[in-house]
Amino acid sequence: MMKQTGIDVPVSQEKSFHMTPDEFRRYGHAVVDWIADYQTRVESLPVMSRVKPGDIRAMLPERPPAQGEAFEELLKDMDRVMLPGITHWQSPNWFGYFPCNASGPGILGDLLSSGLGVQGMLWSTSPACTELETHVMDWLVGMLGLPEKFRSSASGGGVIQDTASSAALCGLLAGRERATNYVTNQKGCDGRLVAYVSTQTHSSLQKAAMIAGIGVDNLRAIEVDESFAMKADVLARQIEADRNAGLTPFFVCATMGTTSSNAMDPLIPLGQLCRKNNLWLHVDAAMAGTAMLCPEFRHFQNGVEFADSYNFNPHKWMFTNFDCSCFWVADRKALIQTLSILPEYLRNQATESGAVIDYRDWHIQLGRRFRSLKLWFVIRHYGVGGLQHHVREHVRLAQEFASWVRHDARFELAAPVPLNLVCFRLKSGDTANQAIMDRLNQSGDLFLTHTKLNGRLTLRLCVGQTTTQAGHVERAWKRIQQEAEAVEE
Amino acid sequence: MMKQTGIDVPVSQEKSFHMTPDEFRRYGHAVVDWIADYQTRVESLPVMSRVKPGDIRAMLPERPPAQGEAFEELLKDMDRVMLPGITHWQSPNWFGYFPCNASGPGILGDLLSSGLGVQGMLWSTSPACTELETHVMDWLVGMLGLPEKFRSSASGGGVIQDTASSAALCGLLAGRERATNYVTNQKGCDGRLVAYVSTQTHSSLQKAAMIAGIGVDNLRAIEVDESFAMKADVLARQIEADRNAGLTPFFVCATMGTTSSNAMDPLIPLGQLCRKNNLWLHVDAAMAGTAMLCPEFRHFQNGVEFADSYNFNPHKWMFTNFDCSCFWVADRKALIQTLSILPEYLRNQATESGAVIDYRDWHIQLGRRFRSLKLWFVIRHYGVGGLQHHVREHVRLAQEFASWVRHDARFELAAPVPLNLVCFRLKSGDTANQAIMDRLNQSGDLFLTHTKLNGRLTLRLCVGQTTTQAGHVERAWKRIQQEAEAVEE
Repeated sequence: MMKQTGIDVPVSQEKSFHMTPDEFRRYGHAVVDWIADYQTRVESLPVMSRVKPGDIRAMLPERPPAQGEAFEELLKDMDRVMLPGITHWQSPNWFGYFPCNASGPGILGDLLSSGLGVQGMLWSTSPACTELETHVMDWLVGMLGLPEKFRSSASGGGVIQDTASSAALCGLLAGRERATNYVTNQKGCDGRLVAYVSTQTHSSLQKAAMIAGIGVDNLRAIEVDESFAMKADVLARQIEADRNAGLTPFFVCATMGTTSSNAMDPLIPLGQLCRKNNLWLHVDAAMAGTAMLCPEFRHFQNGVEFADSYNFNPHKWMFTNFDCSCFWVADRKALIQTLSILPEYLRNQATESGAVIDYRDWHIQLGRRFRSLKLWFVIRHYGVGGLQHHVREHVRLAQEFASWVRHDARFELAAPVPLNLVCFRLKSGDTANQAIMDRLNQSGDLFLTHTKLNGRLTLRLCVGQTTTQAGHVERAWKRIQQEAEAVEE
Repeated sequence: MMKQTGIDVPVSQEKSFHMTPDEFRRYGHAVVDWIADYQTRVESLPVMSRVKPGDIRAMLPERPPAQGEAFEELLKDMDRVMLPGITHWQSPNWFGYFPCNASGPGILGDLLSSGLGVQGMLWSTSPACTELETHVMDWLVGMLGLPEKFRSSASGGGVIQDTASSAALCGLLAGRERATNYVTNQKGCDGRLVAYVSTQTHSSLQKAAMIAGIGVDNLRAIEVDESFAMKADVLARQIEADRNAGLTPFFVCATMGTTSSNAMDPLIPLGQLCRKNNLWLHVDAAMAGTAMLCPEFRHFQNGVEFADSYNFNPHKWMFTNFDCSCFWVADRKALIQTLSILPEYLRNQATESGAVIDYRDWHIQLGRRFRSLKLWFVIRHYGVGGLQHHVREHVRLAQEFASWVRHDARFELAAPVPLNLVCFRLKSGDTANQAIMDRLNQSGDLFLTHTKLNGRLTLRLCVGQTTTQAGHVERAWKRIQQEAEAVEE
């Protein structure tokens, strides 16, 4: 392997290598045009990248350039080197995993955040960054029909985090500290704290239990019912058993819309159990939370008033490009007391006055982007009505797809379809379902992914990409039927 | 408080509210122009925002818009509502905290990442996102003169994280697991693990010890010498005392350039101690790591070959807009074994083959942006030579400023000045120094922040903003002298 430790390129002391504002204007327009063109052509590209491991690296030079290159060269390489290695999440034919939808106003709001380049770790390091975030998070409490206690004007408040994984970790930590009178931060974990999820809860909760020193052995995966929702009576018995064993139950994560099948945990009985046992209830509504924009879907979150924390990701289904994960707590003091640190170099008058929010105490990281700009832009561009419209349309398309599955005797639905995710499979077994998925994805016509439900391979079709319309879902179904025929011949 | 839970705006079923590619082109050009104008005028704006708590929120409507608004209105509000609340980190007169510098190529690389909107959690979800990241991180091993073991082609590898806080947490966790044969993930912490930092180590390590279930009581803050560097002999004695007390030492964080004063912990003796005692050595070089681009500064990292993990932030001083924090490990297997989870819905052929990197196992989060694009753009735009030029110039300006301080009898340097951060103060005491800082910051002419060293209030002047030139540093010194006269009269 070559050594590069000797790199030292002499340059003139007079020269500046920075891109000037005028150059930025010119190249910026070119990049905007590149993206607009990409938006226009993405539908025509194979959704799944066809490269093999190492193909992209093989096109990259072994050593970094000693001298700067022209911006035109960089942009050319976006087409030549990068695009072949892109799996197109923004394609209207994307039905895999979850949507990670984006939109013009979101992208441009984020661009302004990059241009301003401020750090929002403290109120004082850019007051607008903190105050817009608090304000938009309060807006969303109303928009999603969440409990009033989540508002910053009440006992709670919201913060934008990067991902649902980080948000769940913060909920778990706040629960851990509240249950131990904030002693665990000081003394460390003692191996006796127990947390509860279901067998269908997202794997990030397992990761959180590992990170937080709880340990996977102390994370109980509670059995689910036939709709893959957590069984409250089983949870109740497990909590009692753990208490009787001298352990300390402290936290439950309920999911509104599991990753695997969009199952809805029953928030009312789980919430009552948590209240009775003084456990922290975190509600993970990462994708399905967006549906709460529409009053007709809010029955899924009946019982959310019991939640100590709640999370949903506008970067999944609310047209706000990644990352933007909204996290609320009912008692902001518990969260702040869990995560607060205040070294001398961060002290300032505004913080000492207690009149402001310093978001560095609301998450794992210290530094933070001005992420509320993109969320503000999305809400203002679409209006609440525009957002509702598109969410309803996605749900309608998924429901229509489910009805087609129901009426084709070769297929079956593998789980209830509450919103925009359809879990289905060929009745003929795992091999056929794996084959159908591989053939579809390799065709490039559409992209979908799988899960296992009751031990059986199940296909997932998730409708939620920004530009997905009726025609795309219809074509997806046709292609699925074609491949089913080919596979079952 | 008003309730908004009833919001439900009827809209036509035919309408789409999305921004079309043509609209994106038009508005995108307008946003690029807005940023170019901002870059031109930022020098003329008061660096520190003058708003009071609540001022920005008072300009925002209480309720979100039911119907969408014109993009022009959004952009107008950037000037009307947002700008007054911005503290201008991108001003050439920014000398506070640390630089968080940005550049045209960085901003545009990030814009392309937003436009592509891919998720890089797995290799298979966009191979280019993973492979470019691995490649650029390998480039940087050579560019910074880091040990060859950090390369992906050796036993290690690099990953882009969001912040140094998250990176340090990952180092701490990997150390925790390695020291306990990966049992802590399973069983939880037992309250007997002990970690070591210095009294000057960044507060994020305290936060990491809290998060990871170690507990602050088990984080030893080792005494520093007169240059604020950790005393290796004191560390050695503390490790021995802890072992004798039946505790389990497992982790040391050494800092190359502390936040407070840019102190350099002695990596060679610390590294030898870690090796002897089998402790994980994490090196935090958040800001100063960028200086390693220049061979003449690399003596500060002598001993880095002992490091198990290393972190520096291109989003501080390497012209790459936030967030972009580079983290390497010498043994990637230890990191992956610490953070890996693999639920069914993330299984795929490439992962099973073992031939690829899945970066979701290299950090706290699951989802991830295509952050290597902006780093690639920055390195290619400047070239190694261009980056070296600007780093050298920043260091030269800081050293010049330090010499002015040395020659003014009213002032004194409060710490050594190894690179681009000068810690200094009026000899006349804390009140005068606080007054001088408040007057300067309120004037809007420049911005600087403080720390405490040996219990005394100390001003920090950090040179590293993208467009900071000799004239800005000269004017800063003149203004400091003026205010010193006013304060000491």
